Amino acid sequence: MPLSGVEVAKHNDKNSCWVVVHGKAYDVTDFLPEHPGGPKIILKYAGKDATEEFEPIHPPDTLDKYLDKSKHLGPVDMSTVATVEKQYDPEEEARQQRIADKPALAQCYNLLDFEAVAKRTMKKGAWGYYSSAADDEITLRENHEAFHRIWFRPRVLVDVENVDISTTMLGAKVDIPFYVTATALGKLGHPEGEVVLTRAARKHNVVQMIPTLASCSFDEIMDAAEGDQVQWMQLYVNSDRAITERIVKHAEKRGCKGLFITVDAPQLGRREKDMRSKFTDQGSNVQSGQETDNSQGAARAISSFIDPSLSWKDIPWFRSITKMPIILKGVQRVEDVLKAVTMGVDGVVLSNHGGRQLDFARSGIEVLAETMPVLRQLGLEDKIEVYIDGGVRRATDILKALCLGAKGVGIGRPFLYSMSAYGLEGVDRAMQLLKDEMEMNMRLIGCSSIDQLDPSLVDTTNIGSHTTSVPRDNLGHRVYDQLASPEWKNPRSSKL
Amino acid sequence: MPLSGVEVAKHNDKNSCWVVVHGKAYDVTDFLPEHPGGPKIILKYAGKDATEEFEPIHPPDTLDKYLDKSKHLGPVDMSTVATVEKQYDPEEEARQQRIADKPALAQCYNLLDFEAVAKRTMKKGAWGYYSSAADDEITLRENHEAFHRIWFRPRVLVDVENVDISTTMLGAKVDIPFYVTATALGKLGHPEGEVVLTRAARKHNVVQMIPTLASCSFDEIMDAAEGDQVQWMQLYVNSDRAITERIVKHAEKRGCKGLFITVDAPQLGRREKDMRSKFTDQGSNVQSGQETDNSQGAARAISSFIDPSLSWKDIPWFRSITKMPIILKGVQRVEDVLKAVTMGVDGVVLSNHGGRQLDFARSGIEVLAETMPVLRQLGLEDKIEVYIDGGVRRATDILKALCLGAKGVGIGRPFLYSMSAYGLEGVDRAMQLLKDEMEMNMRLIGCSSIDQLDPSLVDTTNIGSHTTSVPRDNLGHRVYDQLASPEWKNPRSSKL
Amino acid sequence: MPLSGVEVAKHNDKNSCWVVVHGKAYDVTDFLPEHPGGPKIILKYAGKDATEEFEPIHPPDTLDKYLDKSKHLGPVDMSTVATVEKQYDPEEEARQQRIADKPALAQCYNLLDFEAVAKRTMKKGAWGYYSSAADDEITLRENHEAFHRIWFRPRVLVDVENVDISTTMLGAKVDIPFYVTATALGKLGHPEGEVVLTRAARKHNVVQMIPTLASCSFDEIMDAAEGDQVQWMQLYVNSDRAITERIVKHAEKRGCKGLFITVDAPQLGRREKDMRSKFTDQGSNVQSGQETDNSQGAARAISSFIDPSLSWKDIPWFRSITKMPIILKGVQRVEDVLKAVTMGVDGVVLSNHGGRQLDFARSGIEVLAETMPVLRQLGLEDKIEVYIDGGVRRATDILKALCLGAKGVGIGRPFLYSMSAYGLEGVDRAMQLLKDEMEMNMRLIGCSSIDQLDPSLVDTTNIGSHTTSVPRDNLGHRVYDQLASPEWKNPRSSKL
Amino acid sequence: MPLSGVEVAKHNDKNSCWVVVHGKAYDVTDFLPEHPGGPKIILKYAGKDATEEFEPIHPPDTLDKYLDKSKHLGPVDMSTVATVEKQYDPEEEARQQRIADKPALAQCYNLLDFEAVAKRTMKKGAWGYYSSAADDEITLRENHEAFHRIWFRPRVLVDVENVDISTTMLGAKVDIPFYVTATALGKLGHPEGEVVLTRAARKHNVVQMIPTLASCSFDEIMDAAEGDQVQWMQLYVNSDRAITERIVKHAEKRGCKGLFITVDAPQLGRREKDMRSKFTDQGSNVQSGQETDNSQGAARAISSFIDPSLSWKDIPWFRSITKMPIILKGVQRVEDVLKAVTMGVDGVVLSNHGGRQLDFARSGIEVLAETMPVLRQLGLEDKIEVYIDGGVRRATDILKALCLGAKGVGIGRPFLYSMSAYGLEGVDRAMQLLKDEMEMNMRLIGCSSIDQLDPSLVDTTNIGSHTTSVPRDNLGHRVYDQLASPEWKNPRSSKL
Repeated sequence: MPLSGVEVAKHNDKNSCWVVVHGKAYDVTDFLPEHPGGPKIILKYAGKDATEEFEPIHPPDTLDKYLDKSKHLGPVDMSTVATVEKQYDPEEEARQQRIADKPALAQCYNLLDFEAVAKRTMKKGAWGYYSSAADDEITLRENHEAFHRIWFRPRVLVDVENVDISTTMLGAKVDIPFYVTATALGKLGHPEGEVVLTRAARKHNVVQMIPTLASCSFDEIMDAAEGDQVQWMQLYVNSDRAITERIVKHAEKRGCKGLFITVDAPQLGRREKDMRSKFTDQGSNVQSGQETDNSQGAARAISSFIDPSLSWKDIPWFRSITKMPIILKGVQRVEDVLKAVTMGVDGVVLSNHGGRQLDFARSGIEVLAETMPVLRQLGLEDKIEVYIDGGVRRATDILKALCLGAKGVGIGRPFLYSMSAYGLEGVDRAMQLLKDEMEMNMRLIGCSSIDQLDPSLVDTTNIGSHTTSVPRDNLGHRVYDQLASPEWKNPRSSKL
Repeated sequence: MPLSGVEVAKHNDKNSCWVVVHGKAYDVTDFLPEHPGGPKIILKYAGKDATEEFEPIHPPDTLDKYLDKSKHLGPVDMSTVATVEKQYDPEEEARQQRIADKPALAQCYNLLDFEAVAKRTMKKGAWGYYSSAADDEITLRENHEAFHRIWFRPRVLVDVENVDISTTMLGAKVDIPFYVTATALGKLGHPEGEVVLTRAARKHNVVQMIPTLASCSFDEIMDAAEGDQVQWMQLYVNSDRAITERIVKHAEKRGCKGLFITVDAPQLGRREKDMRSKFTDQGSNVQSGQETDNSQGAARAISSFIDPSLSWKDIPWFRSITKMPIILKGVQRVEDVLKAVTMGVDGVVLSNHGGRQLDFARSGIEVLAETMPVLRQLGLEDKIEVYIDGGVRRATDILKALCLGAKGVGIGRPFLYSMSAYGLEGVDRAMQLLKDEMEMNMRLIGCSSIDQLDPSLVDTTNIGSHTTSVPRDNLGHRVYDQLASPEWKNPRSSKL
Repeated sequence: MPLSGVEVAKHNDKNSCWVVVHGKAYDVTDFLPEHPGGPKIILKYAGKDATEEFEPIHPPDTLDKYLDKSKHLGPVDMSTVATVEKQYDPEEEARQQRIADKPALAQCYNLLDFEAVAKRTMKKGAWGYYSSAADDEITLRENHEAFHRIWFRPRVLVDVENVDISTTMLGAKVDIPFYVTATALGKLGHPEGEVVLTRAARKHNVVQMIPTLASCSFDEIMDAAEGDQVQWMQLYVNSDRAITERIVKHAEKRGCKGLFITVDAPQLGRREKDMRSKFTDQGSNVQSGQETDNSQGAARAISSFIDPSLSWKDIPWFRSITKMPIILKGVQRVEDVLKAVTMGVDGVVLSNHGGRQLDFARSGIEVLAETMPVLRQLGLEDKIEVYIDGGVRRATDILKALCLGAKGVGIGRPFLYSMSAYGLEGVDRAMQLLKDEMEMNMRLIGCSSIDQLDPSLVDTTNIGSHTTSVPRDNLGHRVYDQLASPEWKNPRSSKL
Repeated sequence: MPLSGVEVAKHNDKNSCWVVVHGKAYDVTDFLPEHPGGPKIILKYAGKDATEEFEPIHPPDTLDKYLDKSKHLGPVDMSTVATVEKQYDPEEEARQQRIADKPALAQCYNLLDFEAVAKRTMKKGAWGYYSSAADDEITLRENHEAFHRIWFRPRVLVDVENVDISTTMLGAKVDIPFYVTATALGKLGHPEGEVVLTRAARKHNVVQMIPTLASCSFDEIMDAAEGDQVQWMQLYVNSDRAITERIVKHAEKRGCKGLFITVDAPQLGRREKDMRSKFTDQGSNVQSGQETDNSQGAARAISSFIDPSLSWKDIPWFRSITKMPIILKGVQRVEDVLKAVTMGVDGVVLSNHGGRQLDFARSGIEVLAETMPVLRQLGLEDKIEVYIDGGVRRATDILKALCLGAKGVGIGRPFLYSMSAYGLEGVDRAMQLLKDEMEMNMRLIGCSSIDQLDPSLVDTTNIGSHTTSVPRDNLGHRVYDQLASPEWKNPRSSKL
């Protein structure tokens, strides 16, 4: 017989704390101190139905994995559970109005247009999590602007009647040289989460990289693939190597074609916009001190398992447990690329984690411009596949990276934004727009296939002038969500 | 006996589609799938009078050329044709008000002033077509700003009482070293179209380059010339070389003095502002998919014949069919200039097509600064005439190009804007302002004739710093029409 | 017996045109076509009292000099002259209100503050004339911004208890290394005109350079000097050398200590802001054509006598007619400085005429940085005195110029602005502020006398980066009066 | 028997001027002309209670030190002293409202957030004094922006499980490589003044540098220290060396561990914002002339004793009177660092006095980048400890300085702002935020201890491009309080 809501409701404090998730009750009393997100957020739902809060930031297998079976209390008669009254929220009402008013999908002509729509249709917290980055968000913007410091030297009078933009990545044939890179918590933007991206990737024959911190479970995302669709796995290495080994072997067994080990996140970054969007005044009545922690945002909460001691000496061990190609994601200087070659890894992603980790880290495209000439000089350019991610918004960005020597580029946020704003159709259109731009720009640069792209087609004179400003009246600057100073209790007092 | 409107009106769908143009009926049923602008725009006028829509974007000989005579149904009794009711359009009413309020012509003191007036007096779609450019319009702006990175090193105490600004281009004597470059669809801006430019060019003794995609027919534009007025022909090469040959030979026969083959447009670029200005909500009720295409703007629609396979190996053929000087328009790097010399062509225009094709293409003036020292070093500077276009707005811009070694510069949009805002008088004044500026600036730089202009008169230290910002409080930035994000259904939801 | 107003009033058209100035009538009928400012402005006052319009832009001896005595008709009974009715002018009323509200003089803490006050208290036309510059006013702004690209390398632990900021210029001892440079039409800003500057220069023991185009007569300005006060003469060379010789010899006889020949103005520049501020709608009813000219602004009108054929070969002649030191004002490249040394002139002013002539001319300070190392290398640094002007607003600007090797700097507009806003007291305070800044900054840079200033105290790495932006939140950017597009008949239509 | 208020009130002019401070009366008649702040401000309180005005800008021992005992008139019966009526001040009322509305401390996520809050909660005059800087405040902003021109080259795959951010400065162990640098007049921001900073420094185990111009007395600040807390002394050298000797010996005796001699302030700078914030209209009725001086701001008033003749030859004398390490604060070029090594001093602070002295002085971080390679080349890098201050706002700024070779960095204004906005808790949080940022960024840069920081971790290509703009949408630009032009009597007249 299912538990009654009345019974559950009795266990509503830290001495005995039950919560209901998807119609089942769980005793999380002992788990409270271990919760990566802190006990406070759980206690808010003690004795109540926590499904809505739980859903987007925990894969469905979370409770099975992390909570002892003895604490699974079984089904609850949901008709007896008091509904958590939702407060009237004028901000949410305005958001619903904006959703009703949003532009038609056909009005989005480029990837930045999706960002403009997502910014005003997503929930504040979700937007804060997706769009935020480290400190002053200077690297976040640098990632896109670095492309604006590279110019083309197109060839003319080349036969470009037939243009082929397909290429290969880690041996897999893809229709266009980008892949969907790993981004966390897909359900913040869309109720179905990462599988939406799986379907779009399938349609356009590009690779999807599955994130460790997905909202969907790993298997759900693998299951969503069709046919010979290629997927890769992004890995945050767990302090408990046994867990890591289990995850990697499972991925290989399921058919993952690449293991992307994140190396730029020994600690997940502080993102102040994310923290600001989470701040509520509730904490202000309790004593301060440890209060600081509860505002650190979703990502840091769910990432406490990441091992900050991971180092080069762990690489041979990875090689020993899997036959998947191993790629280091987040390499940031040529010296480390050379080290990666020496260690025999199969690839590197030159990346700064979307600007979310260390502010003033250089862009992937700039590190690429530093790296490839050295590799070529040492005759190592074929020993390793080099990818970049960060700031890619236009086919011209992809072209620039490939001219410089990248095998492909990862794209993350733009697909989250198109998914959040328009679902699968949005991601589909975003990818199609990139293909259209790519084919056209191949023609305009005077190349009919990917292998014709070479460094003579770009002028990189200014790539190292990080701080030089770039033309500012562009869409990137229009849609950029400016940083804020602390919010005042009464807006009238806050005019800066 | 003329057809009656009632009869025509019966043929109003894709199974039988008649339209009326200039008082005559045409059966375009079979032509629907071939229409470069798509069938949809024709079907909108099925059974009706399409003249107003047809006029500005089709030269008068279009129907003769492209529609079999058997489909020409003859005159219609226009009194029996139902007038297409025009919806009340508050935007058009406001535009008429702005036209009434526009500044006096005498208040326009430079070429940018015409742009400011045109922006608010032209129809939205026409403005969108003329002013738009590729992607983020970074090259569009770079074209003008590149001139702002070149500074003068004037000579003083030179006798400049008599200043002669005349020069020659391809052997023709001109009063000032600019020509009217080819721009499409002149009737969007003025009911008479390109012949207005012909008359102004005559008055100021400068060359007009006749565009392939003119609203007037080629012969109308040639006919508008007077005396020994020099005209050139801009050519988009047709996939059907027989058509191209016919066109070229006809031009030569009519007296054209130069053949400018466009080489930077194997595919016409996407211009998002143009696409945005064309979007209507009508498409949102039908199923999507192919719907994407109808918003691609005028230029792409009318240019589907352009041959993307055109290549260097076609050049000798052109040499074989005409005695006109051959100039490649749209060369974008020194390597291709050298190749052009090798191929024996008579000239190149260093140009990126007004920023309308590949974003991040470099400006003509920058490519000129790259090219001329190499030509001089190889002793080839007299083997070929080098022109540039893009971004020229001031006589100082012309002077900079000539100091660096250009034979002349092409100017396009400014004359479209002055024509759209003030007709022939506007173009006349625009040209006169350039002459006044030119004569004065020759004096101030210390030169009394064009042949005295040399590289020591300019400081080009910064020309390669593409991304470095230039002083921003200038007229160019004031009149630049900023890019937009997608329009929301209700403006209140769109505050970025 | 004086003429009656009624009589005068009869001569009110181009067939017979009399005007009254300072109580006397003149027959200017024959002079109409010769008037440098065009006949139209005179005809506006035909038969009337033109004193108010005439006064600020003509020195008092103008009529004596340029109008044959036979046309001087003698005194008029002013009580019989109908007052020209002034139309109610809401703009003038608002200006009077702003004058009443203007900040106290003690609130002006630097030279830019005077500009902020002058901008809103001067008459529109006067402001337009003083503040305007060539084309996009890029050189105008560059002049000040170039100083912002030079940084200090101060010495510390130097005894700076006693700081002496005096120096010599052309042998004259001055209290601080700036001089009041020549600027035209002082009565536009202050009813007494240039003599106000004479008095202030006397008080602070600095040199005043007397402009050819002063509102006061040359002798009035000389007469206003006291004791051994040093004055120089700025010369626009007249096409009639006899006139020039008379002027130069008179100046030497009156005690002028330097002859500054302007070499950067063979033709006076177009200044569009000035032209815009003069535009009235009156012209719009008459036929256009020659109408263009009447809007060229005051400066061009009064400068038609300037000889554009002036060249290096004239220099020996000047040497032959005067013993005054000869200085070339407006030299703009090192080659011409070397030529000036060869010709034996005593000095050069590296200047671009306050940005009023050729846009994109480089700043004086940049040309100085180009020039001095070459002079030193050739051992010529003591053969010639090098001055600069343009953009000097702070004592740090003066210090930078002197560190690089200038003997002194000219300052123009700031004294016009302080005079226009606050009269003699304003100029006095402006000069005192510069002295206070100068003494303090000498201490902070670690120098106790002018001869200690040397190139090691400045970092000029960026001086050649003309286009690189400088920090923008500074006062210069705040007070800069942005360029405008043409004014619409109804402001509602003009929102850009 | 205490004096009565009535008696005191009689002495209310310059002939006999008594004031009450902290309940005691003083005869300051003879002192009036000597008062560094001028007689006027004292006369405003003649015969009245001046405590509130006196308090924040005079240390408590001021009257004992500077006023002869014979002028100490003894206690006053405060109940008989008429309260100075405070005028209703709408600006103060608005400020109190803003204080009530201010963000919770937990909403401040970085040091710039405190500045945003302080700007709107501090008294205008106090804000003006703390935030102002020299001339156009270009060096003020350059100090922070220079860090934005340095980018990271992080190492990955380094074991950073345990990160140690402690280091030593002048032999003292500190928890993080910053110290609280000396800033004047702490009581303007907080009633308790500098001792608040002492307590925060203690809590976080960092060094506090005690300012000569503190609001608290030197001994109060020393007394506020606990245990083995390390404090340094900042010294303005008095013209009377006997006073200086007494101060230095007293500091050493009290346990100060370092003597920081300020060498960049032979004269205290003009700060126009500070002067503007002090301007009142009262002066406008009296005759001008000497009126100028009363608006020079607090700092110049209290600093008149500073010896502008201080020079290198004084250094041996300092060495002779103290065993404390001697550090020169305010060195600004490598030549002077080398001289300092020769003179045997123990350290230098590369600093421009927070941008408050000479505008266009370069930033400390830039001078560091110039200095360290020279020191290393000469093998002198261990002969001297090099510190910098100015513009440090983020742990990344500290990291950059340490990578380049600094031993530590000084931070000033951010702690004043956090103290002014939130008291001790604010400073505590500010320091904790820096520690959190520092530990995280050490991990992200791939270093586990301070000695691993080296120049290969930073890219300083752009450090010398002073004028190049940096990304502008950052918090620093948001919170920067823009310079103002003079205030008009009526705001409607002042629209720029």
